[in-house]
Amino acid sequence: MKSKMLKQDIMKAIHELSQFGQDECGGMTRLLYDEAWVKAQNHMKKMMEEGGLDTSYDAVGNLFGRLEGTAHKDQTILIGSHIDTVKNGGMYDGQFGIVAGLIAASYLKRNFGQPLRNIEIVSISEEEGSRFPLAFWGTKNLLGLVGREEVLNVYDENGVAFAEAMHQAGFDFRPEDEPLRQDILAFLEIHIEQGCVLEKERKPLGIVSNIVGQRRFSVELTGESNHAGTTPMGYRRDAVHAATEMISNILNRGQSYGDPLVVTVGKIDVKPNVVNVVPGQLEFSIDTRHPDKKMLEDFTKEIHQLVEETAEKHGLKFCLDMWMDTDPVPMDEGLTQIIEAECVLNGVDFLKMNSGAGHDAQLMANHVPTALIFVPSHRGISHSPHEHTDGRDLALGVHTLIKTLYQLAYKEETGIVESIA
Amino acid sequence: MKSKMLKQDIMKAIHELSQFGQDECGGMTRLLYDEAWVKAQNHMKKMMEEGGLDTSYDAVGNLFGRLEGTAHKDQTILIGSHIDTVKNGGMYDGQFGIVAGLIAASYLKRNFGQPLRNIEIVSISEEEGSRFPLAFWGTKNLLGLVGREEVLNVYDENGVAFAEAMHQAGFDFRPEDEPLRQDILAFLEIHIEQGCVLEKERKPLGIVSNIVGQRRFSVELTGESNHAGTTPMGYRRDAVHAATEMISNILNRGQSYGDPLVVTVGKIDVKPNVVNVVPGQLEFSIDTRHPDKKMLEDFTKEIHQLVEETAEKHGLKFCLDMWMDTDPVPMDEGLTQIIEAECVLNGVDFLKMNSGAGHDAQLMANHVPTALIFVPSHRGISHSPHEHTDGRDLALGVHTLIKTLYQLAYKEETGIVESIA
Repeated sequence: MKSKMLKQDIMKAIHELSQFGQDECGGMTRLLYDEAWVKAQNHMKKMMEEGGLDTSYDAVGNLFGRLEGTAHKDQTILIGSHIDTVKNGGMYDGQFGIVAGLIAASYLKRNFGQPLRNIEIVSISEEEGSRFPLAFWGTKNLLGLVGREEVLNVYDENGVAFAEAMHQAGFDFRPEDEPLRQDILAFLEIHIEQGCVLEKERKPLGIVSNIVGQRRFSVELTGESNHAGTTPMGYRRDAVHAATEMISNILNRGQSYGDPLVVTVGKIDVKPNVVNVVPGQLEFSIDTRHPDKKMLEDFTKEIHQLVEETAEKHGLKFCLDMWMDTDPVPMDEGLTQIIEAECVLNGVDFLKMNSGAGHDAQLMANHVPTALIFVPSHRGISHSPHEHTDGRDLALGVHTLIKTLYQLAYKEETGIVESIA
Repeated sequence: MKSKMLKQDIMKAIHELSQFGQDECGGMTRLLYDEAWVKAQNHMKKMMEEGGLDTSYDAVGNLFGRLEGTAHKDQTILIGSHIDTVKNGGMYDGQFGIVAGLIAASYLKRNFGQPLRNIEIVSISEEEGSRFPLAFWGTKNLLGLVGREEVLNVYDENGVAFAEAMHQAGFDFRPEDEPLRQDILAFLEIHIEQGCVLEKERKPLGIVSNIVGQRRFSVELTGESNHAGTTPMGYRRDAVHAATEMISNILNRGQSYGDPLVVTVGKIDVKPNVVNVVPGQLEFSIDTRHPDKKMLEDFTKEIHQLVEETAEKHGLKFCLDMWMDTDPVPMDEGLTQIIEAECVLNGVDFLKMNSGAGHDAQLMANHVPTALIFVPSHRGISHSPHEHTDGRDLALGVHTLIKTLYQLAYKEETGIVESIA
């Protein structure tokens, strides 16, 4: 396997696909069912066919490229990621995972012929939620987790109804009587890290143990707006004074938990937000993530206590609302061990890590053995035209995928088959 | 002197004047040189004439009502405040001070005839800076502190040039060769407190010792925006983390100085201000006030140190800009003592206090002996339709003004004359 050729193939495929959705700001904007999206999926279909795969769309526009197994036609190893981008995103988020699967499958076919089990590449229709206020449409359809009723009153920012956009792109809802696939033995996803850990730790590859659970809160504080000159400090009910104490303590407390807990206060809105008025109202957000649900629960209690005590101390009313609570999702141990073993065998200096961001893999993992591989993101940048991963790292990712797929699809016995037996 | 009649006269005059500038939101909007302003000044002129005063406008529209002295025509006791309001302001801010002077002068004339020295009421054209980005136009003209060049490129929010608005209202710039008045022996202003100190301390009257000095700063922090899920706490340069620590410490430190120092962080702007992004930029304001310049200087040093240390600790760049620095202004001691003595004599339970807000008196005080009297503001509310002062408190203020004016204008010897001799 020549890494340089692999790298060339990857960069060629990524640049080809990146024709579709280039925006005026130097980035990629390819939103579910829009013109660029349709062109990208059709081009991907062509690339899959050129790679020797049999292609098909499902009802909602997930695209599959299949390498038929010779021995176990009822067992499929599925590899893929999403074809859509955020607005003004980069060239690697999502589409690299599809390209990687395609190049790995083609390589295996060229060198080893048909596999024993089916290998399927999936170009998932949507994950980002950038066009409609709804994410994971592709994977949720694959798993039968979503239907017509969920998008009934869903519109994009131009007022286009979800179903109308889907119909215009040539797709439709999944027939209600269509049985769910029972043949998927394992799901593999390879994705850019979207963080700076691999780069900082100088590791070319990450193998994910857990996708973190997330809790998001909004905190509303109500004090009293007053004249900044004529209201002595002791008579104030200053929302900024209380909030800054709360936020500073919440972030310090989060930091003292140590990795992998993260906590972010990304949004602060002060009212009236005027230089010479003691602020009477303030709302801020809290986003906290951890791979262990118990830790999230413990930290939530601490947040509640800090908010309550500080509001009381400053004579403020507060409202703490937890509006998002998703559980951590562990990746499959057996599948992950196969990847690790291949890395060790091939001298790949990998890092076992958590994913702080959400991925298609996190939905798949609740239904089939799933693994998630990361390649480094330069400076941790993602969802930006500046998103970048070194070609050598991309190639190493595909190389690892090839080795893993060979184990899973070309050998009679695999760890993964045993683990789900 | 019957307090009930005084109260009726005051309320009648305030309600009459408040016809001019009533807005759709239940408040007063009377901006420099607008239609309501012209009508209000003309009505005030009529009221002054009915009260037995000789009226005149100066070039820029400051209106004077004069009670000619019989013995000292070169000595004038000037009493007044401003006729303009903020947008959607209240009925008391500014105009009460003019009405109070007028009622006091009329009362004195009715009961004691012409004074020895001139008493003049001034309805100052503008103080609030609400129409044009420029404040104290009236007093600055009175003192010769402003000219044509300062308003050359000054427009209101509808694009009307300052000079055009002035000409439309029938006024013009002060002739450059017009000599400044040398006859003003003292300036008295009575105004609502715009704070809650008198109400909380249950005092019906305040006598101001100092108008506080103000310093305003903006602090800009630059860290790095990152993904809230994929960036471990140790790799962050979080502008909110640094800012909340700074702000909380600055406000705590300010509080520990004790009264009369006040410090306010009224405005916070986070970038990008998104729930799931570690915020890379933040700008906040600081407004601090104290009647002692040395204390402001000391506190400024502490602010600088807190900002610098905290920015460094969090790995952030900072920019601290002091964009306002006005010195404290003491009121005249001799004049203030006369008012105090009258209060003691008449059993008025007054509070010696500082003014945390700016007033026409603060400009006048640098040129002539000046005193400032406060009446309580219910719940400290001002610049709002909910602004309110009890009629009895208004009457007590006018009563105090009458007593003081009698001392200053009807007696041969006054403390004030001696103090500036």
